[in-house]
Amino acid sequence: MTATRTHEDMPWMRELAGQLRVDSIRCSTAAGSGHPTSSLSAADLMAVLLTRHLRYDWSQPEHPGNDHLIFSKGHASPLLYAMFKAAGVLSDHELVNGFRRFGSRLQGHPTPVLPWVDVATGSLGQGLPYGVGIALAGAKLDHLPYHVWVLCGDSEMAEGSIWEALDKAGFYGLGNLTAIVDVNRLGQRGPTEWEWQMEVYRRRVEAFGCRALVIDGHDLDQIDQAFVTARDADVPTVVLAHTVKGKGVPEIEDRNGWHGRPLPADLAERSVAALGGPRALRVTPPPVPAHPTAVQEATPISWPRYEQGSRVATRMAYGDALAALGARPEVVALDAEVSNSTGAARFAQAHPEKFFEMFIAEQQLIAAAVGLAARGYVAFASTFAAFLSRAYDFLRMAGISRANIKLCGSHAGAEIGPDGPSQMALEDLAALQAVHGSTVLYPADAVATTHLVAAMADSPGLCYLRTTRGAYPVLYNTDEPFPIGGSKTLRTSDADTVALLGAGVTVHECLAAAETLAADGITARVIDLYSVKPPDADTIGRAVRDTGGRLVVVEDHYPQGGLGAAVLASLADTGLPLHLAHLAVADLPGSGTPAELLDAAGISAPHIVTAARRLLTT
Amino acid sequence: MTATRTHEDMPWMRELAGQLRVDSIRCSTAAGSGHPTSSLSAADLMAVLLTRHLRYDWSQPEHPGNDHLIFSKGHASPLLYAMFKAAGVLSDHELVNGFRRFGSRLQGHPTPVLPWVDVATGSLGQGLPYGVGIALAGAKLDHLPYHVWVLCGDSEMAEGSIWEALDKAGFYGLGNLTAIVDVNRLGQRGPTEWEWQMEVYRRRVEAFGCRALVIDGHDLDQIDQAFVTARDADVPTVVLAHTVKGKGVPEIEDRNGWHGRPLPADLAERSVAALGGPRALRVTPPPVPAHPTAVQEATPISWPRYEQGSRVATRMAYGDALAALGARPEVVALDAEVSNSTGAARFAQAHPEKFFEMFIAEQQLIAAAVGLAARGYVAFASTFAAFLSRAYDFLRMAGISRANIKLCGSHAGAEIGPDGPSQMALEDLAALQAVHGSTVLYPADAVATTHLVAAMADSPGLCYLRTTRGAYPVLYNTDEPFPIGGSKTLRTSDADTVALLGAGVTVHECLAAAETLAADGITARVIDLYSVKPPDADTIGRAVRDTGGRLVVVEDHYPQGGLGAAVLASLADTGLPLHLAHLAVADLPGSGTPAELLDAAGISAPHIVTAARRLLTT
Repeated sequence: MTATRTHEDMPWMRELAGQLRVDSIRCSTAAGSGHPTSSLSAADLMAVLLTRHLRYDWSQPEHPGNDHLIFSKGHASPLLYAMFKAAGVLSDHELVNGFRRFGSRLQGHPTPVLPWVDVATGSLGQGLPYGVGIALAGAKLDHLPYHVWVLCGDSEMAEGSIWEALDKAGFYGLGNLTAIVDVNRLGQRGPTEWEWQMEVYRRRVEAFGCRALVIDGHDLDQIDQAFVTARDADVPTVVLAHTVKGKGVPEIEDRNGWHGRPLPADLAERSVAALGGPRALRVTPPPVPAHPTAVQEATPISWPRYEQGSRVATRMAYGDALAALGARPEVVALDAEVSNSTGAARFAQAHPEKFFEMFIAEQQLIAAAVGLAARGYVAFASTFAAFLSRAYDFLRMAGISRANIKLCGSHAGAEIGPDGPSQMALEDLAALQAVHGSTVLYPADAVATTHLVAAMADSPGLCYLRTTRGAYPVLYNTDEPFPIGGSKTLRTSDADTVALLGAGVTVHECLAAAETLAADGITARVIDLYSVKPPDADTIGRAVRDTGGRLVVVEDHYPQGGLGAAVLASLADTGLPLHLAHLAVADLPGSGTPAELLDAAGISAPHIVTAARRLLTT
Repeated sequence: MTATRTHEDMPWMRELAGQLRVDSIRCSTAAGSGHPTSSLSAADLMAVLLTRHLRYDWSQPEHPGNDHLIFSKGHASPLLYAMFKAAGVLSDHELVNGFRRFGSRLQGHPTPVLPWVDVATGSLGQGLPYGVGIALAGAKLDHLPYHVWVLCGDSEMAEGSIWEALDKAGFYGLGNLTAIVDVNRLGQRGPTEWEWQMEVYRRRVEAFGCRALVIDGHDLDQIDQAFVTARDADVPTVVLAHTVKGKGVPEIEDRNGWHGRPLPADLAERSVAALGGPRALRVTPPPVPAHPTAVQEATPISWPRYEQGSRVATRMAYGDALAALGARPEVVALDAEVSNSTGAARFAQAHPEKFFEMFIAEQQLIAAAVGLAARGYVAFASTFAAFLSRAYDFLRMAGISRANIKLCGSHAGAEIGPDGPSQMALEDLAALQAVHGSTVLYPADAVATTHLVAAMADSPGLCYLRTTRGAYPVLYNTDEPFPIGGSKTLRTSDADTVALLGAGVTVHECLAAAETLAADGITARVIDLYSVKPPDADTIGRAVRDTGGRLVVVEDHYPQGGLGAAVLASLADTGLPLHLAHLAVADLPGSGTPAELLDAAGISAPHIVTAARRLLTT
């Protein structure tokens, strides 16, 4: 086995590794914080990768044929940024004066604010799962020969998400994925779990269906050969590199207590000098191979239509809408082994070539969607809404990446009935609203669902759709518009004395309650707040003014952070007196029929009637 | 190798397995929902376990010497409840008429509402991690010979949390833990990822440091021998049982489309008859061995004391308080490889024998705490607050278990500075408030931290403490009380025209703002809302009345679901006009100094001053 190319020889790469070390030290010492020792251990690995293996057109970060490089150990950002300098896209001045400074794009951990960064990292165990998503795109959708390289730390091998990623990489035979594990033996507070037991890692990696290559991570020849082998593999490769933390600065090599700590100025100065001082080597990257541009034509979308009054579960309407939307080439879907329940099976049936089964691995489900989004796909990922909580850290990070992902969580709330609380999402509205830049939608019927699925596809960032298990009457005409940020007023008059606000299943309860109240001569406005975030503040404010502040907000969710919170936040600075009855699931539900559980939770029509009457008599 | 005991012979156990099958069918068909086929596959395994291996005094579920049985595949609840009937603690009437019914304790998935259930399951991949926590208690704290048996499904082997659990079981050498994997080849919507490839499972389990025993899960002899071997092991054992989904009902054996589906009445009737009809075998359980009762004496707690005005980080105060609290024998602690940052290292140093390093595996961190709590320990688990999001599904389920766990999340908010947004918890207050039955605390200084750590230990359920990275002045006298649900009014007068409400780091900003306002002749009340959930509604309401509704609420958190939401919820039904300025982190922060980032987020003192002035002029 020989290296693919020899345009830069070993001594040159050794010089480059020195430059990467010098720059990692310089920028972190200048910043007064950062992780130089975690950068030094991987400098040789990255010098070889950058010089000989990373096919990347640095003048065109958007080039579809570019390889992808992800720092799963995002704290080694000094090394990554030093590579950008060596690639000629970052000035030495910006590197040394920008790192970790206010307003700079060179943040403590990399984010896509930088055009060469696909995904934000810094929460360990996430970069590799994202890489699996990009590699899936390359192998199954793009059919392009780009390779995905992920630099991992050894500490993060303790994260279950790493094993979800390697399992799926093996299952899908992703030979275009290489994980490079920088086994430097030391974590933040001391030795890692398995230190330098390379055979422990090897056994695990191989058991999970990947090829393991154990090398000396400071031997440039071994590194080079490993990367050649990795690129040509038909299974995913994990390069297990035995390295030394702090390599190149003898005083702190393999010493505990130097994680996340810049070198003091004097040590930095001495070390930089010993490493040959600052220099300005610039890499000539391996060329990106020419690739065919396969432009797929969109076919017309044939949206499902529903008859008003017919009973359709929004989760099934989601599947129908998604299957229709699949006419657009960039729309793909994933599910975590529950597609028959979420409705996504209908997409899988219509578009099997762009549906990805993630089995019961919700972290990888979301990470794959983020990876696909990094390649320009509009990825819809679905599971029970309750189980999106399994991937909450990935959703949080997707917010930081500003990833364009679309989520559907089915089986929301106590409405699901006999399965009991473990399957009920009762905190998802709170969790998803609190993700940066998110949109949160909760349709009450099949028509709204259809329109909102369409809207999600064209709305940037993380969009979440909450669906209901049971079938309820279609409320709307097929052609009604459902803009994000809007609402629907289903009943109104000039004499409204109270407003009933719901979303999803509780809209139906509000309508039933309004009927009962009407029979008593009480005219209640009914508003469908299908857009939970952003909410329709104008309509809510008008309801407050028109009813003297008498609102009943009803949600199939715990009381904290859901629909009620969204309504209250929209009114906080209005100065309007408010008498708001908030009906939510305060006690822990058990099993029962949906009707029994909605009633026991105090969110059924009779409870809404009682709450409205109470507001009108106090 | 022979079975440990022979009080019930193989034919008897075969009969019992038949009864478990019959009862699984009967109760689910009666309920009209449930998972009989997932129960049938494991009936032989459980018949042998219950008869010969599960040392359990069914009249004393609290007996400290009892073995523990966890159904990680919680959807096989029909089988578990059938076992309870065979153990003589559940009547046939309750089993058949209670399963999945409203108000019944026999919910769709098991919860600790039942005295024989340690932890709620139903979110796959969680039961085994909980089992690791209980096994840790047995091996490292209780020093009792009980064994922990966990029944897993094969689908859930795709969850990363399973591998976090096996890794930690191997690392800690938990020979008192046995996972029994019911490899029935079929998941919810079709074949599992690895179907009956038993060698794939074997390789993985062995690579993760456990002993694997591959058996025919319907051969009672093989099962019996495996369990004998497992109990005597000095490493954790995983029994990989090749089984058939629906075993015992030939028409649906190994057929797709029968997950989560009760047998129709006619098929149920025929099957029950073919399986020998209903019967009432009752198991005589293996005796629980006598055990020494080692009662540890509590030593007096010597709480840390702080001087007002000195600068102390609340995260370090957490460590000091926890180390002091460790004088109580039942108090234990865990951390996810960041104890030098969270402060927990101080506990580890003081009480190394009851500190558990979970490395970077946050799901297992929380699961271990839940498992320890099931054995009566008061377990404090800490990591960066941002990374608690990794375990959100476990926190959600801990709420359903009503688990008595104590959490500390450090490095909250934009205040952390240069590390950037991946390390900033900006959604934790929303996420943790939305966990059922949670308590959420956020101290502004070291004294408050000390008192709140003490209060958490004695407050039931999930309590979360949010701490700050930087050191800020001690505000309170050491002997001030800090009851949960309280607040501290730091500045007040009869002439307050505006109230500034903060928690944690923003309390210091509010105080600085009040100084500035005072210099302008504006008297502002300052309230430290250290108890976010439950909030001090009385004090908040009084502030609204006293100031004409002029509140400035300031939090180092995204705008959704945090302190502002808690304040608004406490005022929703008061009818008081409100002019609330809510200052929160609306835009995505980058890197910078804490001061720069607080200011850029609009939550620093100057922004509070501006908001207060605006409220007073409009």
